[in-house]
Amino acid sequence: MSKAAQSQVPITTDLVTTDPFPASRKIYVEGKTNDIQVAMREIDLTDSALAPVRVYDTSGPYTDPRQQIDITKGLPELRRNWVLARGDVDAYEGREVKPEDNGLKEGEALTVPEFDRAGRKPLRAKSGHCVTQLHYARQGIVTPEMEYIAIRENLGREAALKEASLKGAPRDGESFGASIPDYVTPEFVRDEVARGRAIIPSNINHPEAEPMIIGRNFLVKINANIGNSAVTSSVGEEVDKMVWATRWGADNVMDLSTGRHIHTIREWIIRNAPVPIGTVPIYQALEKVNGVAEDLTWEVYRDTLIEQCEQGVDYFTIHAGVRLAHIPLTAERVTGIVSRGGSILAKWCLAHHQENFLYTHFEEICEIMAAYDVAFSLGDGLRPGSIADANDAAQFAELETLGELRRIADTYDVQVMIEGPGHVPMHKIKENMEKQLKECDEAPFYTLGPLTTDIAPGYDHITSGIGAAMIGWYGTAMLCYVTPKEHLGLPDRDDVKEGVITYKLAAHAADLAKGHPAAQERDDALSQARFEFRWRDQFNLSLDPERAEDFHDQTLPAEGAKVAHFCSMCGPKFCSMKISQEVRDHARAQNDVTGLSSEEIKAAMAEKSAEFKEQGAEIYQKVE
Amino acid sequence: MSKAAQSQVPITTDLVTTDPFPASRKIYVEGKTNDIQVAMREIDLTDSALAPVRVYDTSGPYTDPRQQIDITKGLPELRRNWVLARGDVDAYEGREVKPEDNGLKEGEALTVPEFDRAGRKPLRAKSGHCVTQLHYARQGIVTPEMEYIAIRENLGREAALKEASLKGAPRDGESFGASIPDYVTPEFVRDEVARGRAIIPSNINHPEAEPMIIGRNFLVKINANIGNSAVTSSVGEEVDKMVWATRWGADNVMDLSTGRHIHTIREWIIRNAPVPIGTVPIYQALEKVNGVAEDLTWEVYRDTLIEQCEQGVDYFTIHAGVRLAHIPLTAERVTGIVSRGGSILAKWCLAHHQENFLYTHFEEICEIMAAYDVAFSLGDGLRPGSIADANDAAQFAELETLGELRRIADTYDVQVMIEGPGHVPMHKIKENMEKQLKECDEAPFYTLGPLTTDIAPGYDHITSGIGAAMIGWYGTAMLCYVTPKEHLGLPDRDDVKEGVITYKLAAHAADLAKGHPAAQERDDALSQARFEFRWRDQFNLSLDPERAEDFHDQTLPAEGAKVAHFCSMCGPKFCSMKISQEVRDHARAQNDVTGLSSEEIKAAMAEKSAEFKEQGAEIYQKVE
Repeated sequence: MSKAAQSQVPITTDLVTTDPFPASRKIYVEGKTNDIQVAMREIDLTDSALAPVRVYDTSGPYTDPRQQIDITKGLPELRRNWVLARGDVDAYEGREVKPEDNGLKEGEALTVPEFDRAGRKPLRAKSGHCVTQLHYARQGIVTPEMEYIAIRENLGREAALKEASLKGAPRDGESFGASIPDYVTPEFVRDEVARGRAIIPSNINHPEAEPMIIGRNFLVKINANIGNSAVTSSVGEEVDKMVWATRWGADNVMDLSTGRHIHTIREWIIRNAPVPIGTVPIYQALEKVNGVAEDLTWEVYRDTLIEQCEQGVDYFTIHAGVRLAHIPLTAERVTGIVSRGGSILAKWCLAHHQENFLYTHFEEICEIMAAYDVAFSLGDGLRPGSIADANDAAQFAELETLGELRRIADTYDVQVMIEGPGHVPMHKIKENMEKQLKECDEAPFYTLGPLTTDIAPGYDHITSGIGAAMIGWYGTAMLCYVTPKEHLGLPDRDDVKEGVITYKLAAHAADLAKGHPAAQERDDALSQARFEFRWRDQFNLSLDPERAEDFHDQTLPAEGAKVAHFCSMCGPKFCSMKISQEVRDHARAQNDVTGLSSEEIKAAMAEKSAEFKEQGAEIYQKVE
Repeated sequence: MSKAAQSQVPITTDLVTTDPFPASRKIYVEGKTNDIQVAMREIDLTDSALAPVRVYDTSGPYTDPRQQIDITKGLPELRRNWVLARGDVDAYEGREVKPEDNGLKEGEALTVPEFDRAGRKPLRAKSGHCVTQLHYARQGIVTPEMEYIAIRENLGREAALKEASLKGAPRDGESFGASIPDYVTPEFVRDEVARGRAIIPSNINHPEAEPMIIGRNFLVKINANIGNSAVTSSVGEEVDKMVWATRWGADNVMDLSTGRHIHTIREWIIRNAPVPIGTVPIYQALEKVNGVAEDLTWEVYRDTLIEQCEQGVDYFTIHAGVRLAHIPLTAERVTGIVSRGGSILAKWCLAHHQENFLYTHFEEICEIMAAYDVAFSLGDGLRPGSIADANDAAQFAELETLGELRRIADTYDVQVMIEGPGHVPMHKIKENMEKQLKECDEAPFYTLGPLTTDIAPGYDHITSGIGAAMIGWYGTAMLCYVTPKEHLGLPDRDDVKEGVITYKLAAHAADLAKGHPAAQERDDALSQARFEFRWRDQFNLSLDPERAEDFHDQTLPAEGAKVAHFCSMCGPKFCSMKISQEVRDHARAQNDVTGLSSEEIKAAMAEKSAEFKEQGAEIYQKVE
């Protein structure tokens, strides 16, 4: 569709998916201290004797049929009163939107619809105040955001704890030094934030987002990247991708737009985003200097930061660790510098023969971000872009610099996470995590993949899902997804979903392996449903109920097959689950065999053998 | 399509894909000692200054346009003369095909076309002889199969070694005790086989297959499962799936058919298979007793083994480790027994209150298999089917029994590999490998996945790909693929491809992490192509050139875009690779910076800075 045609298309709520998930209800758990309603999803099971399964839900109001969604008005401002009640912010006129914010020349008109801000004014910390969650945490203040998060992270923990204490079993898992609590209290959240081990990205100008935490002692989170480029773009498509990504489980979304209309597209996204939004401000700054890296200045960059702080971006990727002295370290690499931001800054450094201006102006950046509570995502501009370049001197030199910067940000009470690679073979992944924890004082690690091979373009969500699951296990707090289009093209809607679900399962695999006390609840519920041939429950409990049902129906489409005691893989005669149920019932009927000697077991088995034979004819269910 | 209609469809070579891969040539490397031609694939690069990249190729003659393919005649009998030259086999009439071999009642006609064996007679060891590769290895005989394998496994090692010795770098990787040699000699192959650390599945009645080795000190292999079921079946579809699977990289194929026409479908598959074929004979035996597990007898099973030995099956999954005493250990599991074979035998044991007849007749089974060189794949009938059941008492009790059986088979010179789980969370994977190595005296491990979560039906190729890559790294010799249809339905052609490529990349990730000396060659070639914008080479070097090009073309379809110095992700202004090339050229121009002090580097950089600015205008390539 041409740019001109795009402007003809009205942006309506029809563009985004608002259906609830099958057999699912949105529920809201009330806070104890604060007037908060924590959104969750409950999945009802077909066996009404079983309790519904509660799952973490990132989709915001979109999946609640009781909510009125109107993307031209934006989402309700969930956090606005919490922010105002702290009494430390002022509303102000804000910076005027300039033509270059949208990549336009003076006098050139926007060709995409503007979001109507309806008089919204940006908020900013009062002079002399710091409004970051880190600042509050250090003052000993438990914010409503922290209580919200505590409730949100506790999914299923009470039930899991009760069961574990009944079994007397120690908690399973290998946490590599993480300290995931049996139960999350608001005070625990406060403490983790105060220690800089977790962050709550929550710009005071993005009150629409539900509070979410990123830290090694919480559920592993995932990020989905969206964004137009110079080659392709549409406002509606990007808003839809954002909603779509959160529907399938994206805890965060980064808008990586690089084309025209950046400012306007971002406004649409933020006003409608139930999750934190991150950006890479250097992309927009570069647009403002017509794509000439050498022409970038601190003034243009600073102005861009303020523009985005006022709009409500929750975290900024800032490549302040790409230092002049690091650049020669990339000279012998197979794939040089593969980070867009990293390469732009490397070029700026070489062209000026000066230290990276983001490094030299780092404290000023901290001051700006503290006034809006925007978190740092310290960018890994020198991450390896191939197996050959993994864990090299350039990469680790930058990581050491990021640790240094993290300590500076800390003195400004600005929240920090650290970005990580990249392309790393399996045996070099752990070193990344260990070095990050050491150099960066346990600040949350946020990694792209890593991709564990270079040879599978078209399947890089999988190649990287392997590395993501592993590094998540080792301690990475947030995994940045990779889609099947990585290295090849821009992800479309299907790619976004494929990437999100791949990373959701990788994050879940990490939670299980770390020994998160409630992680296994959903696996157990699904496996139980599988064993009992509750096909509908098996679909509904899965990460993608639509696909599960669709794949099932490709071989056995009849509704009867969804209650059948077999499936298409083995057919009725070979169904191991069915046979196994019979076997188990008989084995169990011997009462607690564990207490019997092997001879006693044999005797009991012999006795049951006759019964078993009598019932033999009933073992296989007929095909309906 | 109805069964009746199927018989109307002639089976022709058009059913299978025979195109070569883009820019690829089939090459044949000659043996030094034996008259052998080892098939490989070379990928030509668009930069003619670069040597073609040689890759392992499992597709057999199908991708060689110089070969005449006729699936009604079968593939050329590559190994027949090698077998006959050893002088230890006899051709004989063989067992007559019975109606029940195809699931037919007496007098009922086949409804699928028969493969015309054109007078082929089965071979069998002469009385008093053993014809296994293990037997020859222990006699100190290096067979043509072993030399073939040595050449095949050496891909790129010479070049890699030369480069490594130039760099003086120690070999990369963490092998967890594996001993992958710098260079594979036929003698090394013989030694690994003689030690039982590797197997060469190679039934003397399957001379069509190219020799292939499964062992911890060789490239990690993958297996693809195909096969009809009672619910759905077609001969042509299954042959096509086999050829299709080997095209994309399956080193082995298992025919898991359970429906009718098993014998006939298998004949078509084996005669046309360039890779070893495995089966689970209990499936066919159960068909012969009308699906009633209690009615299984040693005689029916034995007859089935001989039937399949004569046809040329290269390895049998035999669930001889499911012992009567293990069954009560599964009583409290969430998902009981999930192996088809395991549940059938558990039922048989309970119904008869007797020890598993495969266990009691194990030595007779060894005698039969030794006469044809069929390898054992000792089945894990009690593998865990859910995260909750991983590494439990039932699973490990069986594994200990498998170790005991492996030692018995060893006394018969029958080759053995051991099957492994299943569903296992990441932190419990390593224990599986360690226990298997210990209990089974380093016999090759062959695992299904393992799946690292239970919650992603529709994405189980990915959930299991994570576990597969990890266990492959730890030492598993062959990975059995899982398709997206796992738990939901039978894989179609697309699912087979998706599963094979996922496992190919997982196996490759494992080879890289183990430090296989030549594994990284293809990654480096692809990454170099990526950095130099040789898009065609990037596609052609990938595991799936078709998908890579298709995904690229979805955003930038023009042919000009395939030589463009940017792609659709970032557009021309943001291309990190392009910027990085500039940066690198400048950094490199300072001559060996590693030898310079930091001050000298700065001085050199300043000098280059002026140059850089002069050339600034030329950095971005125009869009063609």
